[in-house]
Amino acid sequence: MKIVRFGEGRYGVLEGPWIYATEGPLGKRTGERFQLASQRLLVPTEPSKIVAVGRNYLGHIKEMGRDFGNEPPQEPGLFLIAPNALLPHEAPIPYPAWTRELHYEGELAVVIGRTLRRVPEEDALAYVLGYTAANDVTARDKQKTDLQWVRAKSADGFLPLGPWIETELDPTDVAVRTYINGELRQEGHTGDLIFPVARILAYISGFMTLYPGDVVLTGTPEGVGPLRVGDRVEVAVEGVGMLRNEVVKEA
Amino acid sequence: MKIVRFGEGRYGVLEGPWIYATEGPLGKRTGERFQLASQRLLVPTEPSKIVAVGRNYLGHIKEMGRDFGNEPPQEPGLFLIAPNALLPHEAPIPYPAWTRELHYEGELAVVIGRTLRRVPEEDALAYVLGYTAANDVTARDKQKTDLQWVRAKSADGFLPLGPWIETELDPTDVAVRTYINGELRQEGHTGDLIFPVARILAYISGFMTLYPGDVVLTGTPEGVGPLRVGDRVEVAVEGVGMLRNEVVKEA
Repeated sequence: MKIVRFGEGRYGVLEGPWIYATEGPLGKRTGERFQLASQRLLVPTEPSKIVAVGRNYLGHIKEMGRDFGNEPPQEPGLFLIAPNALLPHEAPIPYPAWTRELHYEGELAVVIGRTLRRVPEEDALAYVLGYTAANDVTARDKQKTDLQWVRAKSADGFLPLGPWIETELDPTDVAVRTYINGELRQEGHTGDLIFPVARILAYISGFMTLYPGDVVLTGTPEGVGPLRVGDRVEVAVEGVGMLRNEVVKEA
Repeated sequence: MKIVRFGEGRYGVLEGPWIYATEGPLGKRTGERFQLASQRLLVPTEPSKIVAVGRNYLGHIKEMGRDFGNEPPQEPGLFLIAPNALLPHEAPIPYPAWTRELHYEGELAVVIGRTLRRVPEEDALAYVLGYTAANDVTARDKQKTDLQWVRAKSADGFLPLGPWIETELDPTDVAVRTYINGELRQEGHTGDLIFPVARILAYISGFMTLYPGDVVLTGTPEGVGPLRVGDRVEVAVEGVGMLRNEVVKEA
């Protein structure tokens, strides 16, 4: 099932060209339906927090080695992204004047379905609502110089997420691909994650309660690189769909 | 005016020993009143994000110099705290088994009243709802070793905040004091902030929209130190009140 958010903040289920409106993300159908093509999609979840794993593919650790070290982590390395960064499918990514090195990072995103607190790895996937695509847009220059990765990762519009939540995905080995202007730039497989999804969720839930709607980003594969004004960025997660955004100069 | 949150999530105004219930944080009075002594206070705001400034008092920069460097910052150094960390006045601070170095950090906290985006320093204070006290509890050992300050700062219960929001404070020079078991351990004055409140808000709002209810922590003065199970921690902000919590071993 594909869960969408649309219009003024309504939820629905996508079936072919139709959105069937529902009462909340997993609620009953209201009886109304809308053409997908006629609707503006919103970010498909309203998280109380967004927790991301850095350095979770060996290839990406190697390409970042010069600035961030080559050592693979012993446990998941986390950072936070604030919800103001969220951006819907097809909304423009703002390129701010204060950075000269904006990068794309395509990722598989996990959306939490039920409250998770100290859940063991073997049970963790049962708490997931579903999966979507994310572009963890990063001001690489500020990531290197700022105290923590706040401006680098949490500026307004730095986290395109969507287009919808796919509830029936098995996340253990799906392809994650990023295209710039139609050209493939990143390709990873979640089977290569140093810390797979269930292990990430178990780890986080050991000290931070995860609530329904919360988002966990699983890390980006190798191939990150610069964005330029006018670029079309697409993050495709196998079995989910494709998140598309264009880069515009921030007004 | 002192704004409180209490019961099952209701808002009210505190006058002497009475809470006068209101419709929302700045809403009309409903006509009901409750004795403060009979109510459990909640965290007085429901933020979409919590943005904190590190290294904002020279004395604290010096005492942290061995691990984090001695240089005063050129612009505010930010980090994020996730809302799961919030803890009400008088609720127990959990001491987790995974840290051996839990520290207190008393701070002045700002609660946003109106949406702030690219607001100049001279206008910023007009967007503030009010002020409260915070204890930015920190697992200092994990702060030194983890990729970013997530586990160190955002574990469940690591951010006592309250007891209420004082709307009539001038934040330009108030005393912030932290007591452990009644003994004064930290004393700072917001007049000594490297980046004063208005400048912090202007800086953040340049790239992150701040929403009503959001919290901004202004930094801790020198004198940070260890917490032990059984300690009573009090953070007193002059003109606001005193936030009190006891440390308990996490179950």
